[in-house]
Amino acid sequence: MVGYSFMGRTHSQAWRTVNAFFDLARAPTMVALAGRDRAAATTAARRLGWNVALTDWRALIERDDIEIVDICTPGASHAEIAVAALAAGKHVLCEKPLANTVAEAEAMVAAADEAATRGVRAMVGFNYRRVPAVTLARDLVAEGRLGEIRHVRAQYLQDWIVDPQHPLVWRLAKDEAGSGALGDIGAHIIDTAQFVTGQLLTGVSALTETFVRRRPVAELTAVHGDVDVDDAALFIGRLSGGALASFEATRFATGRKNSLRIEVNGSAGSIAFDFEAMNELWFADRTDDARTAGFRRILVTEPEHPYAGAWWPAGHLLGYEHTFTHQAADLLTAITEGIDPTPTFADGLQIQRVLAAVEASAQGGNGWVPIPTGRLAASVGGLR
Amino acid sequence: MVGYSFMGRTHSQAWRTVNAFFDLARAPTMVALAGRDRAAATTAARRLGWNVALTDWRALIERDDIEIVDICTPGASHAEIAVAALAAGKHVLCEKPLANTVAEAEAMVAAADEAATRGVRAMVGFNYRRVPAVTLARDLVAEGRLGEIRHVRAQYLQDWIVDPQHPLVWRLAKDEAGSGALGDIGAHIIDTAQFVTGQLLTGVSALTETFVRRRPVAELTAVHGDVDVDDAALFIGRLSGGALASFEATRFATGRKNSLRIEVNGSAGSIAFDFEAMNELWFADRTDDARTAGFRRILVTEPEHPYAGAWWPAGHLLGYEHTFTHQAADLLTAITEGIDPTPTFADGLQIQRVLAAVEASAQGGNGWVPIPTGRLAASVGGLR
Amino acid sequence: MVGYSFMGRTHSQAWRTVNAFFDLARAPTMVALAGRDRAAATTAARRLGWNVALTDWRALIERDDIEIVDICTPGASHAEIAVAALAAGKHVLCEKPLANTVAEAEAMVAAADEAATRGVRAMVGFNYRRVPAVTLARDLVAEGRLGEIRHVRAQYLQDWIVDPQHPLVWRLAKDEAGSGALGDIGAHIIDTAQFVTGQLLTGVSALTETFVRRRPVAELTAVHGDVDVDDAALFIGRLSGGALASFEATRFATGRKNSLRIEVNGSAGSIAFDFEAMNELWFADRTDDARTAGFRRILVTEPEHPYAGAWWPAGHLLGYEHTFTHQAADLLTAITEGIDPTPTFADGLQIQRVLAAVEASAQGGNGWVPIPTGRLAASVGGLR
Amino acid sequence: MVGYSFMGRTHSQAWRTVNAFFDLARAPTMVALAGRDRAAATTAARRLGWNVALTDWRALIERDDIEIVDICTPGASHAEIAVAALAAGKHVLCEKPLANTVAEAEAMVAAADEAATRGVRAMVGFNYRRVPAVTLARDLVAEGRLGEIRHVRAQYLQDWIVDPQHPLVWRLAKDEAGSGALGDIGAHIIDTAQFVTGQLLTGVSALTETFVRRRPVAELTAVHGDVDVDDAALFIGRLSGGALASFEATRFATGRKNSLRIEVNGSAGSIAFDFEAMNELWFADRTDDARTAGFRRILVTEPEHPYAGAWWPAGHLLGYEHTFTHQAADLLTAITEGIDPTPTFADGLQIQRVLAAVEASAQGGNGWVPIPTGRLAASVGGLR
Repeated sequence: MVGYSFMGRTHSQAWRTVNAFFDLARAPTMVALAGRDRAAATTAARRLGWNVALTDWRALIERDDIEIVDICTPGASHAEIAVAALAAGKHVLCEKPLANTVAEAEAMVAAADEAATRGVRAMVGFNYRRVPAVTLARDLVAEGRLGEIRHVRAQYLQDWIVDPQHPLVWRLAKDEAGSGALGDIGAHIIDTAQFVTGQLLTGVSALTETFVRRRPVAELTAVHGDVDVDDAALFIGRLSGGALASFEATRFATGRKNSLRIEVNGSAGSIAFDFEAMNELWFADRTDDARTAGFRRILVTEPEHPYAGAWWPAGHLLGYEHTFTHQAADLLTAITEGIDPTPTFADGLQIQRVLAAVEASAQGGNGWVPIPTGRLAASVGGLR
Repeated sequence: MVGYSFMGRTHSQAWRTVNAFFDLARAPTMVALAGRDRAAATTAARRLGWNVALTDWRALIERDDIEIVDICTPGASHAEIAVAALAAGKHVLCEKPLANTVAEAEAMVAAADEAATRGVRAMVGFNYRRVPAVTLARDLVAEGRLGEIRHVRAQYLQDWIVDPQHPLVWRLAKDEAGSGALGDIGAHIIDTAQFVTGQLLTGVSALTETFVRRRPVAELTAVHGDVDVDDAALFIGRLSGGALASFEATRFATGRKNSLRIEVNGSAGSIAFDFEAMNELWFADRTDDARTAGFRRILVTEPEHPYAGAWWPAGHLLGYEHTFTHQAADLLTAITEGIDPTPTFADGLQIQRVLAAVEASAQGGNGWVPIPTGRLAASVGGLR
Repeated sequence: MVGYSFMGRTHSQAWRTVNAFFDLARAPTMVALAGRDRAAATTAARRLGWNVALTDWRALIERDDIEIVDICTPGASHAEIAVAALAAGKHVLCEKPLANTVAEAEAMVAAADEAATRGVRAMVGFNYRRVPAVTLARDLVAEGRLGEIRHVRAQYLQDWIVDPQHPLVWRLAKDEAGSGALGDIGAHIIDTAQFVTGQLLTGVSALTETFVRRRPVAELTAVHGDVDVDDAALFIGRLSGGALASFEATRFATGRKNSLRIEVNGSAGSIAFDFEAMNELWFADRTDDARTAGFRRILVTEPEHPYAGAWWPAGHLLGYEHTFTHQAADLLTAITEGIDPTPTFADGLQIQRVLAAVEASAQGGNGWVPIPTGRLAASVGGLR
Repeated sequence: MVGYSFMGRTHSQAWRTVNAFFDLARAPTMVALAGRDRAAATTAARRLGWNVALTDWRALIERDDIEIVDICTPGASHAEIAVAALAAGKHVLCEKPLANTVAEAEAMVAAADEAATRGVRAMVGFNYRRVPAVTLARDLVAEGRLGEIRHVRAQYLQDWIVDPQHPLVWRLAKDEAGSGALGDIGAHIIDTAQFVTGQLLTGVSALTETFVRRRPVAELTAVHGDVDVDDAALFIGRLSGGALASFEATRFATGRKNSLRIEVNGSAGSIAFDFEAMNELWFADRTDDARTAGFRRILVTEPEHPYAGAWWPAGHLLGYEHTFTHQAADLLTAITEGIDPTPTFADGLQIQRVLAAVEASAQGGNGWVPIPTGRLAASVGGLR
């Protein structure tokens, strides 16, 4: 694993846990963690359960006892590490967004395509797909329970930088993060919306804004720097199946902590989800009798629900971290079965193109920017 | 009163009720109801409590015993009736949207301006402002409890025409209704958003769609006609105070019956409202201690709350109809006090301009269309 | 109508409104209001829409132009007025609880039985039955949608006297009110539970408590008096069909304003209701597929729902007051059709016996006190 | 660890996880798992991460490399194992209920008291205390934020045996489980109520019921056996500080999966919690201004919240399993610091006495049964 910060912690917990709950052919060993700062990496390795700490990610790639490279660094380094790892025959799990630019993402897709011919797998980590309630929503859409999809409204609302004194961390720097709320959390709702509906965005009109343009460069300093990424991004668009969609990603929604919400309306039913109540899916079925119709609060913890059967009895909730455990289980299964895990790098590239279109619209007068889909429709079709 | 359909029923209940709960200087007599079909108008007058039924609205205007003309007809006839009534010195309450076109609305504003010089009052009926929870939200914003407003997300979701066999009623005909979901329910969320924030929309990028393009012309017929209005409208825009806003009005949100929702995020707090739980306002206060902070479910039925003191003890809920009772109380008070009731016709015109900008954007490539504000900012400022 | 305080206001609004929304054979005239204080009664009559004000309820009974006597006074005077009115051939609507003692209630039942032989009707006003969601709950149980009933948990939570400085109003005086939370709001949940399940309580074990034993006798006085009624009552019991039931009525549930809640679990389904969201009924159907099962939030505003078709389109909520409007409609219908309206005085007497059993248990060591049912089972059976 | 079923799985996940998130002086090794069936124990040990599998719990006690014995078996074997382990100088974590009888629990307390003199610690596993929201509720009460406590209503609602064909598993056999819903889930709400309020039950009046008295002895068999435990238990009682309390534990609440609910009303505020939304605590503060007062939905995931700071950023929810992780962290800390972990065996004994009182009341005419407290008040006082 490369990186040991927030994502490093979630991925480590997933690797440590996955085989205790999922019946998998292979049980991974947590071989090595790489990070530039030796002391910090050593501490993290011990704490997170990795056998050794290394200070250069290249050392991971050179080791024969490593089969999977798990990339948990900021977006700026994804392309270099992933391309090298795939070239070296390592399966790659790469955190989202796939890259900081479309060009980088295209290079990664090329590398993944080539690697696939050698049986080497690449996956991008849009973990929220693997909330059981979100997967169930996707299943209901795929089974036709919602009929023809007319509306998607997706929001990802946080509030961690409402305070203008919050310092300029790497997520607020374009060099490191590529963009602000857009790439960090907007990418998640784009993936979630496309995953649940099985449709791709074909174009957008967008607005972005940076509400607080200068911030302290660190805690407790009077030195300020410029914020060069968006604080919030709003866009409306059309999906390939004819639905209208609206998106909003913001770090300025006071009181909303991690509210990834999606609501989908179809001719036969609707679903609604909010990550702040992640074990619940709300489902309205238009075939219900009018006297007893209404949104059902489905507690997605039944044995019949995606992933849930591996865990506890009904009603015993799951937490955030297990979106990563499910991701790990699915990656290990795909490797064992010799198939491509999803979302693929190509899926990640398509999302990168949406992000680019949003920025182009926002910077170019808020008008319509079409999004090329090309061969990608097939990939999403494969989700079903 | 002109018209006796849905709005005629709500307004009649308001006139019948208002003096039993509000201390007003004047108690109106329900003199006459006008409708083209004599039999239907006569039945309605008896049922709804009007002393006589007339078949021509002009007859209302000619009567000396009528001081207020209440227009509850489809939008196509608003301008003619309102202009005539104001010219005749009658105070006018006109249902929303103010008109079917900007030109009509401008003529109505001119008539209202002229009438005002004679002490004759004109009001447009955006009743949802007068849900106590919505008025409370406005008050909290005006008092600075939300700080600087950053985000507005407003939706009006219904599902009454999801069934493609639902007939082509007047609300689906451009001639009568002006537009579809946009003018009918989109107008309400534009007003609500502007009212609550005290800011005006300065421009929009928009999408509209008609999902079902042909419908039976009536119940139980095989004859179909074209739907020439929108089924849904989405738009994003900027408010005069710098906030980003998103709007969605649709009649295709399966399972949502009358879900007028608004969420506003500011630097100091947030509010959220859904008409399907109309007695509740959710409020997050960033000054709360982190351990006990969270959205508060305020049951807006306390004596301290807008309008609520006139009714029942705390916790005894109000219904939809009393948005109209509050409107009637405020109109009667304004007439007594010799001031202009709000929203004014000028406010209605500004909303008409937003509707026109949405249509222009949607029909012209989904790009940015600015909205002229002119003298209207003052009017909204007056809300405070 | 006798009385013009809180209940007088709700009943007046009901009489004023009922014929505008319900198709009834008879339209009542609001003839006279009686109250001891002439000035107050006169003001109330004008405000609430009654033609004249009288200072003695006996004068109502003597008038030939009055057919219905509506008793909205505290419980202490119910028996005398009701018995006299029935003897005089007036139909009677009497607020709950029916009386302050079982003996009074028995006398009222005797009077009602005798009057019924003359076609004179008597009804007790348990208005919460006529919340559309509560009536729907009853219908679902009666249709077998919940199967065999196993559990009822009913609570009525208010907080209006948490402040120890709240004065000693009549509702806190045994002479006037009979009991405290028990008779005032406990009576409502007993009725609701029995109404919804169609079963009667056969015995209880109970606790009561008076948390604040002395209070100011009025606002802004240092003179204190004893509180001689309960602040809260808890009891558990068994229903005639084998279900277990728990009840709690309190005026000390800080933050709960008017939270009449009931949850019923059966072998085939469950319902849950809270008056603070009175337009919603939550329903779990065990026949739903496990993947999509969950409590449904039914917005009880559809044309198919009890009473709702008389009002507005779906999603346009009703308020508290219309429980009384529905009560008035049902009483007028019963009078027209020559049948006994429900709940009958006999139903009211049975509830009085439950209240007496609760007090007996609470005062006698919290042990089991059986409740005689006698002929009353038939009456409740008639609810279906 | 003894046992490898449901509780064995939760405890294993806790031991595997605790040191990655909590800074503890000691990091336990998962030495050995004991279970009677060699094949099953071996599989479980491998799956759950234990180094070896043993077939006799006595072998755990004999090993020098084991310091903690974690008892995850049914209640019938708790006393024997715990007493032996404590005698052998092993710290003991014992699942709840502490025992199947008061006598067994008394013996365990004696053993724990004796062991404590040697620095050997004993803890009983009421894990729901360590839901962050429940601990926060306790903290708010302890800080006086709720004022004087007046009401507790606690429910634990499940529905897993509504189907009469559900087989006679060990939890439905008195020999193994001691009692039914009462000891299994009723014990949890007794602990939660006492923990949150810091008060002890002083007496109860109770009802119990077995709705389905015969069940198949296994899946897919026609052979039936008697159910000799309760399906549901209801009781009302008084707490040592003067509050009234109601409790209900049932496995027949159709649609409720794992709904451990508690609501506490005090003179200054209220809290409400439902495990089905375990990351939320609802809190009403009577000192809030009336215009903006209301129950706050606190998402208990902030760094300031109990346990939450060890995990993820705000809004990233925790799951059921981490109640056990927190329990493990607190036990390890207590061992390191040389203090008694809570809840103690004495706390477990007091709950056993409540269970016995409930059964005595239910079987003896539903009357009041007082509960001896003795020295235990001190222990609960120590919670603060």
